[in-house]
Amino acid sequence: MRCGIDVGGTTVKIGFIDNYKIVDSYSIPTVKDTLFDDVFKSIKEYCLKNSINLEAIGMGIPGNVRNNIIVKMPNIKLENVDLNNISKKYFPNITIKASNDANCAALGETLVDKDKVKSSYFITLGTGVGGGYVYDGKVVDGVNAACGEVGHMFIDHIHNFKCGCGLTGCLETVTSATGIVRLAKHYYKEFNTTIPSDMTAKDVFDKAKEKDPLGVFVLEMVSEYLARALSNIATVVDVECFYIGGGVSKCGNILTDCIKKYYDKYAFYAVKNTEIKLAKLGNDAGMIGAAYL
Amino acid sequence: MRCGIDVGGTTVKIGFIDNYKIVDSYSIPTVKDTLFDDVFKSIKEYCLKNSINLEAIGMGIPGNVRNNIIVKMPNIKLENVDLNNISKKYFPNITIKASNDANCAALGETLVDKDKVKSSYFITLGTGVGGGYVYDGKVVDGVNAACGEVGHMFIDHIHNFKCGCGLTGCLETVTSATGIVRLAKHYYKEFNTTIPSDMTAKDVFDKAKEKDPLGVFVLEMVSEYLARALSNIATVVDVECFYIGGGVSKCGNILTDCIKKYYDKYAFYAVKNTEIKLAKLGNDAGMIGAAYL
Repeated sequence: MRCGIDVGGTTVKIGFIDNYKIVDSYSIPTVKDTLFDDVFKSIKEYCLKNSINLEAIGMGIPGNVRNNIIVKMPNIKLENVDLNNISKKYFPNITIKASNDANCAALGETLVDKDKVKSSYFITLGTGVGGGYVYDGKVVDGVNAACGEVGHMFIDHIHNFKCGCGLTGCLETVTSATGIVRLAKHYYKEFNTTIPSDMTAKDVFDKAKEKDPLGVFVLEMVSEYLARALSNIATVVDVECFYIGGGVSKCGNILTDCIKKYYDKYAFYAVKNTEIKLAKLGNDAGMIGAAYL
Repeated sequence: MRCGIDVGGTTVKIGFIDNYKIVDSYSIPTVKDTLFDDVFKSIKEYCLKNSINLEAIGMGIPGNVRNNIIVKMPNIKLENVDLNNISKKYFPNITIKASNDANCAALGETLVDKDKVKSSYFITLGTGVGGGYVYDGKVVDGVNAACGEVGHMFIDHIHNFKCGCGLTGCLETVTSATGIVRLAKHYYKEFNTTIPSDMTAKDVFDKAKEKDPLGVFVLEMVSEYLARALSNIATVVDVECFYIGGGVSKCGNILTDCIKKYYDKYAFYAVKNTEIKLAKLGNDAGMIGAAYL
């Protein structure tokens, strides 16, 4: 049995995984000061109670991880955490593996793919845009633990919206949940329509499903930007497939179908056949991937 | 001793390499029908004559290579060549390794870098623009053998010149030797100057060194496009350093310094410190890299 942990800002999800499937899982609250002691202690107790002999423990972190050391977790405001230093009290015989949460999700999706994928690039469309690169069945962290930061690829020269990172025109500014709403708010007047002030990305794509002109327009634009980004990524790493995940991807095939249309137009001929798939595991991807780091 | 081979359209360069240095090398003509028999026969004879016991043979190919099988060499018009099928007559105990020539150059530059680099991205600026990705000290070919095809990353939305690949706005259209001349021809009238019809990329950058306004303008533009491309690549793979090679790079630090200026402006903060270096090995990089595939 393996243990995969997905650390979030409010809760930590802990899963017990066998043969790429979650056998059991539960959550504990994220308490900054005792975070990792809480996690390891809880796992230890669970294992004792259920007579589980763990072979591996892995952790997905919302931040930068290098060589299993947490460099920075901006949202939880922790940095330079040596996980194995904490875990040795609880699991002296297991080396804890850790990586960025998007990387873990990338690995999770890759491992459960029935097509026996070895190399893939995962894009997660949430509040921000993140990503993860799996090569030869393993996560690539990158030298600055910044591999997968494709949300900050320059892709939009038309609006050049300012990004949270300080740059302009980043993929994230036009394809994150926030970016999708931003585009709808930017264009709705041209469609002689109104939009609610609390509109979400889901609302925009629901409108697209109903063939509402503004909804369709934004869906096409978002898909075109994503296709440009995937075409660029394909020339850099030439992976077997792309996974599209995160909250925005819950709209389903309407998004991946539209991305495919533009990818076919913009991709270099040698990488035109790279598959674009919807991520399947949802919130479980991080735990499953972490367990196999 | 290792043997590194760099297959070109007119000659094949054969190098004998020890401890990352070329001990001896020579060339033979590229004859399509007997190409690889010529190569292996020649190496065999050389080794017998000089009492050399080879431990490895590697080959850089101007085309697509997957699992040591040549998928396509467009310029030499050969495809589906199983090198080991040919070599076994001459070297039954050695498995021939092969990869794309830009990948071999990437590996060569990485191996001789005094900074003990393990991951890098190499960009070669010649007639076209190619590249190679080295991860964990090894070449990444990609599933379609298209890893490194960053010359076909979409980067220029201003001119949108048509590329040889059929797309428009590719990096190659504005930063290859041909692309540099294309930009000079596009803009010279705005500088109230004339240019010779047989002008080369070297001429343009020589003018930049003399502070000629058109030369400086084109150098800045080319560097800005390259910096945009490197910034994008850095978010995808987060390597330790970039190497700039190929004929165009012979102009020296004037190019890398100008790229660095724009890279500092456009790179995502986490990858801002990625080094940008001039390739050092020139034409030897392919042979050295091939020997260590």
